[in-house]
Amino acid sequence: MNTSEFRRRGKEMVDYVANYMEGIEGRQVYPDVEPGYLRPLIPDSAPQEPDTFEDIINDIEKIIMPGVTHWHSPYFFAYFPTASSYPAMLADMLCGAIGCIGFSWAASPACTELETVMMDWLGKMLELPEAFLTEKAGEGGGVIQGSASEATLVALLAARTKAIHRLQAASPELTQAAIMEKLVAYSSDQAHSSVERAGLIGGVKLKAIPSDGNFAMRASALQEALESDRAAGLIPFFVSSAALVVPGNKEDMWLHVDAAYAGSAFICPEFRHLLNGVEFADSFNFNPHKWLLVNFDCSAMWVKKRSDLTGAFRLDPTYLKHSHQDSGKLKPAFNIFLTDGPFHVLFQHWQIPLGRRFRSLKMWFVFRMYGVKGLQAYIRKHVQLSHEFESLVLQDPRFEICAEVTLGLVCFRLKGSNKVNEALLQRINSAKKIHLVPCHLRDKFVLRFAICSRTVESAHVQRAWEHIKELAADVLRAEKE
Amino acid sequence: MNTSEFRRRGKEMVDYVANYMEGIEGRQVYPDVEPGYLRPLIPDSAPQEPDTFEDIINDIEKIIMPGVTHWHSPYFFAYFPTASSYPAMLADMLCGAIGCIGFSWAASPACTELETVMMDWLGKMLELPEAFLTEKAGEGGGVIQGSASEATLVALLAARTKAIHRLQAASPELTQAAIMEKLVAYSSDQAHSSVERAGLIGGVKLKAIPSDGNFAMRASALQEALESDRAAGLIPFFVSSAALVVPGNKEDMWLHVDAAYAGSAFICPEFRHLLNGVEFADSFNFNPHKWLLVNFDCSAMWVKKRSDLTGAFRLDPTYLKHSHQDSGKLKPAFNIFLTDGPFHVLFQHWQIPLGRRFRSLKMWFVFRMYGVKGLQAYIRKHVQLSHEFESLVLQDPRFEICAEVTLGLVCFRLKGSNKVNEALLQRINSAKKIHLVPCHLRDKFVLRFAICSRTVESAHVQRAWEHIKELAADVLRAEKE
Repeated sequence: MNTSEFRRRGKEMVDYVANYMEGIEGRQVYPDVEPGYLRPLIPDSAPQEPDTFEDIINDIEKIIMPGVTHWHSPYFFAYFPTASSYPAMLADMLCGAIGCIGFSWAASPACTELETVMMDWLGKMLELPEAFLTEKAGEGGGVIQGSASEATLVALLAARTKAIHRLQAASPELTQAAIMEKLVAYSSDQAHSSVERAGLIGGVKLKAIPSDGNFAMRASALQEALESDRAAGLIPFFVSSAALVVPGNKEDMWLHVDAAYAGSAFICPEFRHLLNGVEFADSFNFNPHKWLLVNFDCSAMWVKKRSDLTGAFRLDPTYLKHSHQDSGKLKPAFNIFLTDGPFHVLFQHWQIPLGRRFRSLKMWFVFRMYGVKGLQAYIRKHVQLSHEFESLVLQDPRFEICAEVTLGLVCFRLKGSNKVNEALLQRINSAKKIHLVPCHLRDKFVLRFAICSRTVESAHVQRAWEHIKELAADVLRAEKE
Repeated sequence: MNTSEFRRRGKEMVDYVANYMEGIEGRQVYPDVEPGYLRPLIPDSAPQEPDTFEDIINDIEKIIMPGVTHWHSPYFFAYFPTASSYPAMLADMLCGAIGCIGFSWAASPACTELETVMMDWLGKMLELPEAFLTEKAGEGGGVIQGSASEATLVALLAARTKAIHRLQAASPELTQAAIMEKLVAYSSDQAHSSVERAGLIGGVKLKAIPSDGNFAMRASALQEALESDRAAGLIPFFVSSAALVVPGNKEDMWLHVDAAYAGSAFICPEFRHLLNGVEFADSFNFNPHKWLLVNFDCSAMWVKKRSDLTGAFRLDPTYLKHSHQDSGKLKPAFNIFLTDGPFHVLFQHWQIPLGRRFRSLKMWFVFRMYGVKGLQAYIRKHVQLSHEFESLVLQDPRFEICAEVTLGLVCFRLKGSNKVNEALLQRINSAKKIHLVPCHLRDKFVLRFAICSRTVESAHVQRAWEHIKELAADVLRAEKE
């Protein structure tokens, strides 16, 4: 495909995308296909000679769309939102064209520099403590990770390295394995599986701390666990929680705050209090690619001390000898390709992969084209819609709300058995007018109604609730028979 | 931005991208900016009210482009190629619009299913053994990872879990830490730092095996290391190499073949022999996003036994009890959201992040619009250009070739000191007509000339060589003075 054909096809694709977004409400939100549907529809190997673009674009409606779960339909209330906005799509087109791999400053200076500035912009929107920002040329800074799972893993690995160094400095005879055997990380029993997985990868124990009535980690339970583990000779080193819980003996613990979904709301002053205490955290992460209109992937992570992060990954054996390289003062001819500094950070040492795309362009486009006020209005609209749904549920005595509604998620269920709720969800997802997924809150099977789509309005929420009520009536009738 | 504005701006962006690609040869390949250039050019916080699209598009040329290293310039010969093609860009536009998060089959069936089929298409292009393909409903399969670093890490973690289970089955009293302390992974002393980093993350020892004259792992050296480590009570469990090296006692070792760059060439029959022996490997990985015209990120990984991979990440404690879930036979109402099967794999258990984009669309567009023959022709053109450069170097008695040229990379230097070669590279990168980076081959400072751009032609290579010769003459003259 030459450039002039790209001009033509690119514009056709823009229209295809625009038509898709414009007509998404008319598509069935969850597909009818069965596992294995796609393979028989396409050849079993790549063509030797090129197919035409027409063939491909026609196959999108024939082969791909019938198997798509439409995450951006206003009838999609499943999982969590994943961000989608036109400014982010435009930025991604530019990102694809520049196509640089920004593992170091020199590999594409704009890629590294815009990222550090955008992470500062975003940090300021959240009123993060200055210690997390880069602009003050302090020790902290922000980085775009691919996902909250990676951010959690990176934080846990940094904490592990720090703990090992600290303990070996005190007792040089201790091996790494002897220390790792005793390290314990903690998270809430309601936490995302990514923490458990980070512990598994990092080869350390993970303990789940009982949560309170709001499904947040219970501070007293954490304190008890720390004390009893220390008494048993174990070494607590890492806590990951959704809201900050500050344990005693903080100095030896890494505190990671993971607000993957909720974090976007903290740009609104009325929700900022949910982040109170972040000043005690060592690292903080949330996903603009969930709720801040920046298309996946864009997981924002900040640390107070960036050398903790890079220390966990950096392999250059000269690192410990020349730690002043981090100050950016040393810049001989080739060091620009190899070293960190406040202005030419090597993001490759902040993350699991080596390569990275120019993802900060998406932030730049979105933040500028919405403005902070536009982003706040977007968050507030979603929160308002979830409260609207909550009040509809509360008006129906057959239903109950299962957790406090603070942001865009409503956990609800029919009063009664798990079985009747499973039956309700199954009817909902078989009817395919709306799409929901369940969760378990303690022993209860619960339906999650998450405000997801950029284009969801009150009318969609009302229609969804009418539909749920009808299906609930069917379920309750069937139960009695 | 509403849909009708997106139609307009999207088409403008298509033209911007087309103009950028068309005019890239006229842009200086490496930028003039100094570290810290960008921050003073933009506000220090996000705007409260929206900026206009015109403001942003104008700022691209004013603020971003002056700091871009143009990886797709035909004068870019640095690092390795990163793929760029129009079909991949079109597919990425569609991917952004669908914007699904494909962590499970149900989250968007087309996303999971197209990926398994595309990985089979690609596996067949490479003539991978059937054991790695999904279509035979065997135990193997392919998955798109974000980067070769992640593939290496995932393979090492799978191997670690397998080794721990095997040893604990034989000696239930062994703790995980006691085993991990003795585990040893191996790679070539010329291997990418990603292996060393995977060892660091996985908490296991990594040993570098001396390479041979072609900078490949020396099989006899590996064998010696294995024997002496076993004699010392250590437990060899993982080998990562660029070409297959089969050690004795294979049954207890995981063999990972990482052909990140070279792998794309294996679609040409004349280079396929470089993959011989892959039938003994447990996992194989290469990056279509380097040299197969599929824009970053798209790292292709295959395993012979997918349960090894998912076993390292799966947290569901019922997994070991109900391994028949993997057969796809169990499909109660909600299991489709939770379980693996040959047709509804849960790719979230194959990788570090939870979320994933619909990246197989890029493969589908590229494979179909180029056809296998078009892709082979592309690889062959690059290989021919590197040989053309090699022969130019060989015609000049002041220069030497430092490693056999097999694919698209030429390692060369001035005969003489490292100092004179450092001076030459510095002149090249200061002149900024072309862009190269160095490497060290054993003790020698070497210049790397990598054929990178999709649009590089013989004329660019000739011009680059004339330029290098001129600068070399300057360097040699300056040295004599």
